Amino acid sequence: MSRSAKIRLFVDAPLGAGQCVGLTGPQAHYLFAVMRLAEGARVALFNGRDGEWQAEVTTVHRNRGEVRCTQASAALSLPPDLWLLFAPLKKTRTDFIVEKATELGVRRILPVGTDFTNAERLRRDRLQAHAVEAAEQCGATFVPEVADLTPLRRALEGWDPARRILWCDEGLAGFVPEGADAPPAAAQEGQAPAIPDGPALGAPDGPGPWAILIGPEGGFSPPERARIAALPFVHPVRLGPRILRADTAAVAALTWWQITHGDWSAP
Amino acid sequence: MSRSAKIRLFVDAPLGAGQCVGLTGPQAHYLFAVMRLAEGARVALFNGRDGEWQAEVTTVHRNRGEVRCTQASAALSLPPDLWLLFAPLKKTRTDFIVEKATELGVRRILPVGTDFTNAERLRRDRLQAHAVEAAEQCGATFVPEVADLTPLRRALEGWDPARRILWCDEGLAGFVPEGADAPPAAAQEGQAPAIPDGPALGAPDGPGPWAILIGPEGGFSPPERARIAALPFVHPVRLGPRILRADTAAVAALTWWQITHGDWSAP
Repeated sequence: MSRSAKIRLFVDAPLGAGQCVGLTGPQAHYLFAVMRLAEGARVALFNGRDGEWQAEVTTVHRNRGEVRCTQASAALSLPPDLWLLFAPLKKTRTDFIVEKATELGVRRILPVGTDFTNAERLRRDRLQAHAVEAAEQCGATFVPEVADLTPLRRALEGWDPARRILWCDEGLAGFVPEGADAPPAAAQEGQAPAIPDGPALGAPDGPGPWAILIGPEGGFSPPERARIAALPFVHPVRLGPRILRADTAAVAALTWWQITHGDWSAP
Repeated sequence: MSRSAKIRLFVDAPLGAGQCVGLTGPQAHYLFAVMRLAEGARVALFNGRDGEWQAEVTTVHRNRGEVRCTQASAALSLPPDLWLLFAPLKKTRTDFIVEKATELGVRRILPVGTDFTNAERLRRDRLQAHAVEAAEQCGATFVPEVADLTPLRRALEGWDPARRILWCDEGLAGFVPEGADAPPAAAQEGQAPAIPDGPALGAPDGPGPWAILIGPEGGFSPPERARIAALPFVHPVRLGPRILRADTAAVAALTWWQITHGDWSAP
């Protein structure tokens, strides 16, 4: 086999042997102005559906160009059927969560608004671009869809009960209010976790779709917690004995799920 | 018991019943100018050795003040005997690794210089301050020591063989060169990992001290990899089937170790 292309691009076009793809805008600028690719140069393309394809530059203009798929270099590799629900944090930490979720492998990312969520709006397109960039950098052939910010209550009302939810609650994981001037003291009396006893890391076995739910800065409100805890498809989990920030909890929970329920044990 | 203080400070002074602690500099400014604490106000203190103590403000001046320990509010809680060795990345991602390692629980953080490490110098004091801040925010009573940047070769020469090393190699975890303009293609032919077959997540059991070793941008050099692989106390690990950035790999490896070897299964 020939050497693979070093540049990897996500495109929203069908890919297949002989398929031509026109490139414009920032991608064309990057390839032809920044990287100065000429005709005959090679790039790798993926679209989230057709795997990865090697492609050859066939036409170059200043602001646009065309590439033609020559051969498949990787099949589509779907991550396990896992969704991530998280309450948006500050910009940097929200971006971080989207990047890490894409790398660690999820199918869908759902920002949810909770009683204590500060972000009232979210640039969905910006977060989706972040997921695309993470996939480009990490050699992924799939890009998770980033959904619009949805109120948690509404997301849970229409929830398919077959998709179990791994609930990382501040009562368990001890979330730190992000950017808090006055962080909570270690001993938080009067904040008894409403969690059944049992092995901290135990979780129901069995295949099927899952979602991870990470709380906002400041945790869930008491009515929210009661509502979540009452749902039969929700499984609370404790992420170790130490208090974690919400973004740390997201990465730790994704890792934990991939190890126990996902594809990390595959050879 | 009375309500705990909301403000939590790391101090480098002995703590115990009746012990007085003088506060100056940024801490005094924060408490007395920003938060406007008056005499009688309460704060929580920890020093990484004596647990957490509730303290009462006894004297207030503009730029300094004194607090007196009243009662212990948490015993010293040491994380498991785990070190993190990592090759420094860009500033934000290096800061991120120190913050996350502190939250997830390590005893010591050792930045190591490798053949492909870009950072030639590192502000150790700045990173140590990051670890302190993470501990303050997360209710920890212990702060990991951040060591000076040390060449990996030297760190391994004097290594205590009783401390096993969980080696997260780019040949396994597939590190993404951080900030790379041209990310590597998914199919990296000619980069066969020098890793024995076996369960991806298997690791030697048994108690004892451990360290996690995370590679730099661009991975380890071939001579480096050969040298590391030959060490009898080194155990390579594969962090799932997808390619992870170095900072993601650090958090995932810390999580994985805490679950399999650390204290995350404690009730």
